Amino acid sequence: MAVDEIYYTGVRSVARRLTDGLEPEDMTVQVMSDASPTKWHLAHTTWFFEQFILRQFVDGYKPYDDIFLYLFNSYYNRVGTQFPRAQRGLITRPTTAEVFAYREHVDRYMCELLHHEPISKVVQLTEIGLHHEQQHQELILTDLLALLAINPMYPEYRPAKPVKPSSAPAMGWSAITAGEYKVGCSDEHFAYDNERPSHRLVMNRDCLLATRPVTVGEYLEFMTDAGYARPELWLSEGWNMVQERKLVAPRYWEKEGDLWRVFTLSGRRPIDEHEPVCHVSYFEADAYARWAGYRLPTEFEWEIKARDTPIEGNFMDSERYHPIPAPADSSSDCFAALFGDVWEWTQSSYQAYPGFRSTDDALGEYNGKFMCNQYVLRGGSCLTSRLHMRSTYRNFWPAYTRFQMTGIRLAKDG
Amino acid sequence: MAVDEIYYTGVRSVARRLTDGLEPEDMTVQVMSDASPTKWHLAHTTWFFEQFILRQFVDGYKPYDDIFLYLFNSYYNRVGTQFPRAQRGLITRPTTAEVFAYREHVDRYMCELLHHEPISKVVQLTEIGLHHEQQHQELILTDLLALLAINPMYPEYRPAKPVKPSSAPAMGWSAITAGEYKVGCSDEHFAYDNERPSHRLVMNRDCLLATRPVTVGEYLEFMTDAGYARPELWLSEGWNMVQERKLVAPRYWEKEGDLWRVFTLSGRRPIDEHEPVCHVSYFEADAYARWAGYRLPTEFEWEIKARDTPIEGNFMDSERYHPIPAPADSSSDCFAALFGDVWEWTQSSYQAYPGFRSTDDALGEYNGKFMCNQYVLRGGSCLTSRLHMRSTYRNFWPAYTRFQMTGIRLAKDG
Amino acid sequence: MAVDEIYYTGVRSVARRLTDGLEPEDMTVQVMSDASPTKWHLAHTTWFFEQFILRQFVDGYKPYDDIFLYLFNSYYNRVGTQFPRAQRGLITRPTTAEVFAYREHVDRYMCELLHHEPISKVVQLTEIGLHHEQQHQELILTDLLALLAINPMYPEYRPAKPVKPSSAPAMGWSAITAGEYKVGCSDEHFAYDNERPSHRLVMNRDCLLATRPVTVGEYLEFMTDAGYARPELWLSEGWNMVQERKLVAPRYWEKEGDLWRVFTLSGRRPIDEHEPVCHVSYFEADAYARWAGYRLPTEFEWEIKARDTPIEGNFMDSERYHPIPAPADSSSDCFAALFGDVWEWTQSSYQAYPGFRSTDDALGEYNGKFMCNQYVLRGGSCLTSRLHMRSTYRNFWPAYTRFQMTGIRLAKDG
Amino acid sequence: MAVDEIYYTGVRSVARRLTDGLEPEDMTVQVMSDASPTKWHLAHTTWFFEQFILRQFVDGYKPYDDIFLYLFNSYYNRVGTQFPRAQRGLITRPTTAEVFAYREHVDRYMCELLHHEPISKVVQLTEIGLHHEQQHQELILTDLLALLAINPMYPEYRPAKPVKPSSAPAMGWSAITAGEYKVGCSDEHFAYDNERPSHRLVMNRDCLLATRPVTVGEYLEFMTDAGYARPELWLSEGWNMVQERKLVAPRYWEKEGDLWRVFTLSGRRPIDEHEPVCHVSYFEADAYARWAGYRLPTEFEWEIKARDTPIEGNFMDSERYHPIPAPADSSSDCFAALFGDVWEWTQSSYQAYPGFRSTDDALGEYNGKFMCNQYVLRGGSCLTSRLHMRSTYRNFWPAYTRFQMTGIRLAKDG
Repeated sequence: MAVDEIYYTGVRSVARRLTDGLEPEDMTVQVMSDASPTKWHLAHTTWFFEQFILRQFVDGYKPYDDIFLYLFNSYYNRVGTQFPRAQRGLITRPTTAEVFAYREHVDRYMCELLHHEPISKVVQLTEIGLHHEQQHQELILTDLLALLAINPMYPEYRPAKPVKPSSAPAMGWSAITAGEYKVGCSDEHFAYDNERPSHRLVMNRDCLLATRPVTVGEYLEFMTDAGYARPELWLSEGWNMVQERKLVAPRYWEKEGDLWRVFTLSGRRPIDEHEPVCHVSYFEADAYARWAGYRLPTEFEWEIKARDTPIEGNFMDSERYHPIPAPADSSSDCFAALFGDVWEWTQSSYQAYPGFRSTDDALGEYNGKFMCNQYVLRGGSCLTSRLHMRSTYRNFWPAYTRFQMTGIRLAKDG
Repeated sequence: MAVDEIYYTGVRSVARRLTDGLEPEDMTVQVMSDASPTKWHLAHTTWFFEQFILRQFVDGYKPYDDIFLYLFNSYYNRVGTQFPRAQRGLITRPTTAEVFAYREHVDRYMCELLHHEPISKVVQLTEIGLHHEQQHQELILTDLLALLAINPMYPEYRPAKPVKPSSAPAMGWSAITAGEYKVGCSDEHFAYDNERPSHRLVMNRDCLLATRPVTVGEYLEFMTDAGYARPELWLSEGWNMVQERKLVAPRYWEKEGDLWRVFTLSGRRPIDEHEPVCHVSYFEADAYARWAGYRLPTEFEWEIKARDTPIEGNFMDSERYHPIPAPADSSSDCFAALFGDVWEWTQSSYQAYPGFRSTDDALGEYNGKFMCNQYVLRGGSCLTSRLHMRSTYRNFWPAYTRFQMTGIRLAKDG
Repeated sequence: MAVDEIYYTGVRSVARRLTDGLEPEDMTVQVMSDASPTKWHLAHTTWFFEQFILRQFVDGYKPYDDIFLYLFNSYYNRVGTQFPRAQRGLITRPTTAEVFAYREHVDRYMCELLHHEPISKVVQLTEIGLHHEQQHQELILTDLLALLAINPMYPEYRPAKPVKPSSAPAMGWSAITAGEYKVGCSDEHFAYDNERPSHRLVMNRDCLLATRPVTVGEYLEFMTDAGYARPELWLSEGWNMVQERKLVAPRYWEKEGDLWRVFTLSGRRPIDEHEPVCHVSYFEADAYARWAGYRLPTEFEWEIKARDTPIEGNFMDSERYHPIPAPADSSSDCFAALFGDVWEWTQSSYQAYPGFRSTDDALGEYNGKFMCNQYVLRGGSCLTSRLHMRSTYRNFWPAYTRFQMTGIRLAKDG
Repeated sequence: MAVDEIYYTGVRSVARRLTDGLEPEDMTVQVMSDASPTKWHLAHTTWFFEQFILRQFVDGYKPYDDIFLYLFNSYYNRVGTQFPRAQRGLITRPTTAEVFAYREHVDRYMCELLHHEPISKVVQLTEIGLHHEQQHQELILTDLLALLAINPMYPEYRPAKPVKPSSAPAMGWSAITAGEYKVGCSDEHFAYDNERPSHRLVMNRDCLLATRPVTVGEYLEFMTDAGYARPELWLSEGWNMVQERKLVAPRYWEKEGDLWRVFTLSGRRPIDEHEPVCHVSYFEADAYARWAGYRLPTEFEWEIKARDTPIEGNFMDSERYHPIPAPADSSSDCFAALFGDVWEWTQSSYQAYPGFRSTDDALGEYNGKFMCNQYVLRGGSCLTSRLHMRSTYRNFWPAYTRFQMTGIRLAKDG
């Protein structure tokens, strides 16, 4: 994909479309410290272009507002201090309208810059900036879901689109043969630093990867079998979390009488047993797998299968904003929802690949400094832009995370 | 003041005027759990009229929105459960515009009701409701100040009005003779339940009340004399607070180089030594008094003097929203700022007067259940409506409170 | 009581007797930050004599150990910094044996000093020191109870003494006539500074004081009537505490099947309906009174009756360490357990009497700096030394306190 | 090593020797929730033998005390509930003496059982139990250090032994060639489940492992170069910890004037620049390595070198209880302190080896459930029994841990 003015505008305009129908109130509030206001996301990705491109490569460029450099820096210590993360929702000025004006200003400069055959460093940074923009577009949706879910009026963000009724197909298993493999990104295309260098590894034994994610119906069986009440199924830290937070179901589920309901971006409705289960933590994914007699895959088992699978599925682009049932004809040679629908927890800690080096500039802070106490997720979700995804892509979240669109794919030894 | 349609409309319209120039963003956010969003204040006082008057006295009245009964109940357990206080700022719907529509709806019904010679119970409840409205109008301003103060852009709510330059007059002392006195409200006019019954008490010794509040300049001397670093000046709990929060000055003060600045509703500016000091906790007021060789007055010493003093001063009505220097000609027989400017901490715990009884209905929850671990403040402030004030009025806040417009008046034994 | 060598030795030796049967382990641990280890109490009261008497009045006296001056200072900022209160239980050295040696050392010097007609300042300080010792002897017992109660082995500190079976007498009421009274301590005998000056006050209306404390059986009726589940019975802050801590009964009560058991210093046993209820907070006492249609007395109502009542009752001296049923023949002119058994919560905030002045020396920190957010309790308990008690004595604890031996006496307007 | 009566008695008796000179007070207190009282360690390891061996394999064996089964179970959910971990220090009974009696009782039964050619399951469980005992003997020392360090009297546990003065040798580097390796435990000898199965892996590039740990002197250079103040050197989570806890040096270091002192089990003394630095978290180890231009090794880089290195060094057996300077003649082919002195942080998250399976019984809870958010440490320390160590041994602690005897060994790519 050529990184030009048109591509830039296309990616950036998605954010605007996502805010259709949102009120300034909706875009201002920070629902919890792990989330950010929509307004902040909109401003922060703009700051990224201003800070790392316009200020470096446009002669005489003056910051739009000096205080924005402080307010909308997320965590880049090398370029300055940051407004406290947990207080992002207390900033009522600039208003939402002013943030949109800031976006327009920066977009105008960026388009001008991209219009005139920019140097390769600019192209490269723009590509990072657009991927960064896409990450935050996904976060706008996950954070909005968490926010609306608090409201006893159950506001609907988008009306639900009709889904073709479908029973999930039987679980199939796709084999991986023991042996040496190459993983990570080796080609010329864009990838984050954490996907490189490409390297070899040994799969010590044959194993199999499930052809579809675990469904809501299957997860319900785990719940019915007292899954949340049996410590032997859980990692020690997960068991502590279950007890402290009194967890009994995935996030956004609520029981009324005998009926489980789930809150989605299309409001509240009964759960659908055929959908992939989502909004589970690593701990729940791991406990479910243990209960079912399987395990979670490593990130490399996943990647080995994914690199031969087309990047198709239920992405943000379909504007459903919720996982959908797998088509009934998935089979052992045909993965359902390996991409899209739900991010899939792997049992791999988020660590550096052998020979990994952060770059020495401020962007070196992008990924490396988070390589601690997080788990790798793969495949993207129904809230991810399809163009953002690739088979080597490594997402990462702490094991307790439930507000992301996270689900479960199983594996087992051969 | 006749409680009629005109009076009702007059009091209610003040709130609307207070929100001029505020953006939906400003009115949505809750800056801390002790404060509430403007939007919530606007809705809650409206709910009060709907819940306690319209639903009781208007045949066939249907609640505007059932969920509002839950969202905008503050603490009246007898009429239902309440949305968690600390999450008021997470409610983005109803929007600000919808809350204004709610106000208009209820106001229409209220005016209709008041128009047709309502029964005395309705008049009585309306009067309470309007005083309640005025209390929340003051809170809109205190909470807004706390919110804007977080913002590194230092937004200005209202431009500062010019103040006639003035040096504070010398501190005078007005005598109270030992003997028996009557305090509390005995007359027919409106008063809250906590001001009754009127009762007798003995002043055991002659004492004197300062004729003006402590100024910023005087308070600076306390600071310069290491007032915040000397435990012997502080109540034990106050000293803990000073150390835990590392207090060194009143709230909203910030030091730049050698200059102290203060954030006000008219933005940030250098402190003015002649103004009454404000935004101090009970602990700071008490420590200052001990340092100065005086003490805080009891609420009755204050009241004995106040009942002969006209209710004039720098109230919200003057639209200054900040205390102003006392006129230079205050003397021992003429109090400055006994009313208005700053609420004055007294050394009196907030307790029931002898023979106090809460009413048995839901409004019985109004004051009595807060009679614990709070201190009485007297006199109103520059954020209080003048019509809301009277000499028997008892405001109350916990000793650690600093975000209210609180100041210091001294007393001493004769 | 002459403050001489014999009296000193008598009071101090009580502490030793209280530790009979305790192991070093029992005396070392701090069960919660509100409590202190036995060992610390033993050392702290000794430090008091060393710091305020020996170091001032014995020529050439060298501190027993310089570090003890820091370790065993409780809160006297004027004489130095203090080891953090919440960590008192982490200090394993000096050992218990070493603390007893410290006591012997200081006692030897004190006896020597008292033997030779000491100056009146020494006598006066010794008297304060011995009252201080008695306060901490009571705390040794309350803190020990809290500690042993944690242990699933339910250790018994002392075997229970037989109690003459008795039904509590009917509740009687003793009248107080409206009018002017004098309260506080005016005579020459020892009293704390907070009991002075004596002063006049007006009782605005006739009222009555209950002749005996509320019993366990009466309190059970409140519990059965959903007392802990009805917000209208509670102060706002109390209701928050009930919900946060999920309170359903007094501290140390535990339900097994249908049977309530209580943990005492004589181990765990079924509750006895005829005993005074104890280990209730101010909030519970206040809610009970409201439920029963009465109120708590003011501290002065209590004092007016107490000054004509002999100081007799179930004190620590009886070595029962738990309240006992009132004798069946209590009548309206004869109070049961006005002294001893349980400390009685009053509705009076702990405030300075008119004209109160702290002394200017370090002992000025003794009482005054705690005059904030506490309630006055009167009468002493089964854990208090009888000689420590008098009708003007003001004990004080925060409203949430439950680990002290606190109970309920009712009052009502006439 | 034959697992017989003599071996059993030998290992168990070490614990007794470790408590020589400790008072009951020292053995009762829990200094923080991550640590346990000595008394608890002594009882818990005894419970392990009673629960998993005596109760299963001795006919008619009755538990020594039923309540001990609850009090001294650490985290084995399958065999019952546990007394809350954070309250272990509040249990004063059983006393220390009673715990020693418990040990003697269980030891008598165990010796009897081992005396009569026990079945292999008993031998196998005894071996696990003795390794478990050794782990807790190390914890007794680390927890005791944390406890004594709180005490302003700086108690000395054991007098310091003389150390031959020595300058640390120059840092050497030992090469590992890229290629395929086998790691993990494959032989018949005892190993924990987490060391198996043995498996193959690819080293993608040549690399080098430092021949000695980082010294105090080298770490001081990092401190002097503002290591604790430069966010770009730290993992994000580590930087948060540095700021929240205001870290400026390793745990147990204290600065007086210009002199850094360190608290050890032999009391407080100036730091020694030639010793290995210890009591650093993973975050500090990682930041130091980044600052120095190197990185931490993976656990497999360490293991590949360690399996050819003799298990010799400064272990608990030398009774020094503190790291000592490396001998001056370490060279590139001769590692100093690869075993003993300090546990060495690796960059490897603590994860299951491919094909890892927990056993299905209660002992299956031993290691597997902690495989989350911890890092692998290798090599043992001066507080570890030499017989407890082997080249495949995987210790693990959360990244923030500083109270263990943890140090730094560097690696770099070839």
